[in-house]
Amino acid sequence: MKTVLAEIITIGDELLYGQVVDTNSAWMGAELTKLGIRVQQITSVSDNEAHIISTLNDARTRADIILITGGLGPTKDDLTKTVLTSYFHTSLKLHEPSLADISAIFRKRNIDITELNRQQAFLPESCTPIRNAIGTAPGMWFEEDGKVFVSMPGVPFEMKLMMTELILPKLKAYFKTPEIIHKVIQTTGIAESILAERIEDWETNLPPHIKLAYLPSLSGVRLRLTGQGDEATILEQELDNEVKKLQHIIPGYIFAIGEIPLEEAIGILLKDRNLTIATAESCTGGYLAHKLTSIAGSSAYFQGSIIAYHNEVKIRELNVKKETLLQHGAVSEATVREMAENVCLKFNTDVGVATSGIAGPGGGTPEKPVGTIWVACAFKGKTVAKLIHYNKDRKLNIEYTAMVALNLIRQTLLASVEE
Amino acid sequence: MKTVLAEIITIGDELLYGQVVDTNSAWMGAELTKLGIRVQQITSVSDNEAHIISTLNDARTRADIILITGGLGPTKDDLTKTVLTSYFHTSLKLHEPSLADISAIFRKRNIDITELNRQQAFLPESCTPIRNAIGTAPGMWFEEDGKVFVSMPGVPFEMKLMMTELILPKLKAYFKTPEIIHKVIQTTGIAESILAERIEDWETNLPPHIKLAYLPSLSGVRLRLTGQGDEATILEQELDNEVKKLQHIIPGYIFAIGEIPLEEAIGILLKDRNLTIATAESCTGGYLAHKLTSIAGSSAYFQGSIIAYHNEVKIRELNVKKETLLQHGAVSEATVREMAENVCLKFNTDVGVATSGIAGPGGGTPEKPVGTIWVACAFKGKTVAKLIHYNKDRKLNIEYTAMVALNLIRQTLLASVEE
Repeated sequence: MKTVLAEIITIGDELLYGQVVDTNSAWMGAELTKLGIRVQQITSVSDNEAHIISTLNDARTRADIILITGGLGPTKDDLTKTVLTSYFHTSLKLHEPSLADISAIFRKRNIDITELNRQQAFLPESCTPIRNAIGTAPGMWFEEDGKVFVSMPGVPFEMKLMMTELILPKLKAYFKTPEIIHKVIQTTGIAESILAERIEDWETNLPPHIKLAYLPSLSGVRLRLTGQGDEATILEQELDNEVKKLQHIIPGYIFAIGEIPLEEAIGILLKDRNLTIATAESCTGGYLAHKLTSIAGSSAYFQGSIIAYHNEVKIRELNVKKETLLQHGAVSEATVREMAENVCLKFNTDVGVATSGIAGPGGGTPEKPVGTIWVACAFKGKTVAKLIHYNKDRKLNIEYTAMVALNLIRQTLLASVEE
Repeated sequence: MKTVLAEIITIGDELLYGQVVDTNSAWMGAELTKLGIRVQQITSVSDNEAHIISTLNDARTRADIILITGGLGPTKDDLTKTVLTSYFHTSLKLHEPSLADISAIFRKRNIDITELNRQQAFLPESCTPIRNAIGTAPGMWFEEDGKVFVSMPGVPFEMKLMMTELILPKLKAYFKTPEIIHKVIQTTGIAESILAERIEDWETNLPPHIKLAYLPSLSGVRLRLTGQGDEATILEQELDNEVKKLQHIIPGYIFAIGEIPLEEAIGILLKDRNLTIATAESCTGGYLAHKLTSIAGSSAYFQGSIIAYHNEVKIRELNVKKETLLQHGAVSEATVREMAENVCLKFNTDVGVATSGIAGPGGGTPEKPVGTIWVACAFKGKTVAKLIHYNKDRKLNIEYTAMVALNLIRQTLLASVEE
């Protein structure tokens, strides 16, 4: 079966000048992918008639579906409707149901409809109007030479409602698409290149209808398997089998199957085992606690933290021994161990995690340059500490340290199960 | 002078499948705009050789600068370098300085360099390599027919460092861009529409070579003045005059001139007056402390925090009275006031800030729905508390609360000066 190809065109100067991040395209891309429609290009152009037309002409030579967002507002810098009307050699005509919808919005706000908004109910005669239940710009569906062109407003929630309720079902019906299924395997604690070497044989032996992609980020490398076939159930099984093989090859590095962040995976581990956690943070300055508490329901396991930026706070609030600080310094294995162990005692939690390091840009010494960071995790009377040599950048040091600390929690919890 | 035109090409299936939102393009668009370079198209394409080449061919017919990100990783789905090498009819050659950089990264991590990473030091002979100080993929600068093509890694922080330190200055020099000076005036605590009304007369009277843009964000509205002219010193003076006028019109809402985050502006206020600060956080879960400690040198004023997620921690660590919690609940003015005052005492600081609220998605009640949040700031024996009714979204609630708390610190410090 031939793959149905789509392109997305987003229109608006604000996207090109960087005043707005285009989140619409990623959302549409994900939704189309779920239908087995392959997005092969996303193009952002300004509100310029000639440029919009040449972009439409280029897109139709490559794709079956062209989705357009933006440029449907009531003001004169919004050109999309005018451009499409002339592009499809048609003319504007009042569309009564759209006028009724627009009028209703104004009635609800207790204000009179403006002439500019009334004009929004005039639509190209050759299009199938797509209802906008929550905004003043209706969508438009055009068909020409077996290709579909859909124009939608750029306001994210209006576009999403229109896509979900009307356009995606209509596309699904119009094109009979193959099954495409994705599986994401999330790894952490292993560099992309080393990971690639470890799984090389497995990757080489993947059947041709299953493809692998590496998606690296600060928290680790996400592996994405994409399978294409005729039978969803068979495909699902094939992908699950490949995931299982992978779990045998690199068991220690996989923290989740699916789009789950590391802090959520840890939350699941803690909740499943009815464990509680507290953090004692110096260089991460609350960022580690923030990651843990960014997960809904984290109050089930997260008790609290002491952020001990100053040595006096480390002594007073975390009972770190003065001698330890004098002898080894704040950035040391001894200090970070005491921090992790004492925060457990203080908050009466099962797990205690601590960080202490030189985030920079100041504070480095020849023996302990910026990026020298200790993390420790205390659990069941055992404490594991880890030394990081990372970066010159304060922000990155903080983020990376939190990720290493999260992974240390994960490894500690998993190791305790194996014992 | 002819406007210099740029196009951005981002490469990677993950962008088209919607698994990654393309934030790079907006950032690059904003930076190029600041230099007076106009971005006229952003194109995202998959890791497909023919498609990448046709996109390059199209872009060069329209633009002077083509910036490419992505596809420079060490694995076989990364095609950009191979494609550019054949596109510019050149061949790969070992670039020793890049190999030294890559090797240094591996040495620092105490692991051996892999063959795949060694391959990343082979670069097209005809390009000028662009150093990547923090990653393994060097950038590449090509010139052909007066046009510039630059290839960068897709990892945002690597791309940004490369752009800021090397590529933007190189583009400015190569295209001799006109003098464009920007001044950013940062406001907080005032809605965009009200701000626009307040400064309408001033805006109308701006000279035609000075333009104003409104850039709203969670922390407030940034106003950007952009002046274009022949003489930098005159232009600079004109802009400074306009900024001064604005400071007279809306003095209380401006927290900084320039791209300084609110937390840094507060750091400056604290440092100038030799004051110290501590936070007591419930719903922000460490995010407020993280914001404050994200600023280099914050250890001069930031002492530490108690993150008291559980009521028991609020009682034990922050001496919040049991009766207060029983009578008013954890999310109440009384509780948040005690938290702010007691954290001051506990850490012996001048300023204490506290947050307590229902971040969601669970935990709401009819009287206190999700998004009900109290913040308080204690300073010099006075405590000011503020009630927020915000959002249904956990992440937004946390971020917005931290911003309101930061602004409350700022207002408290400024009010104390006026007294």
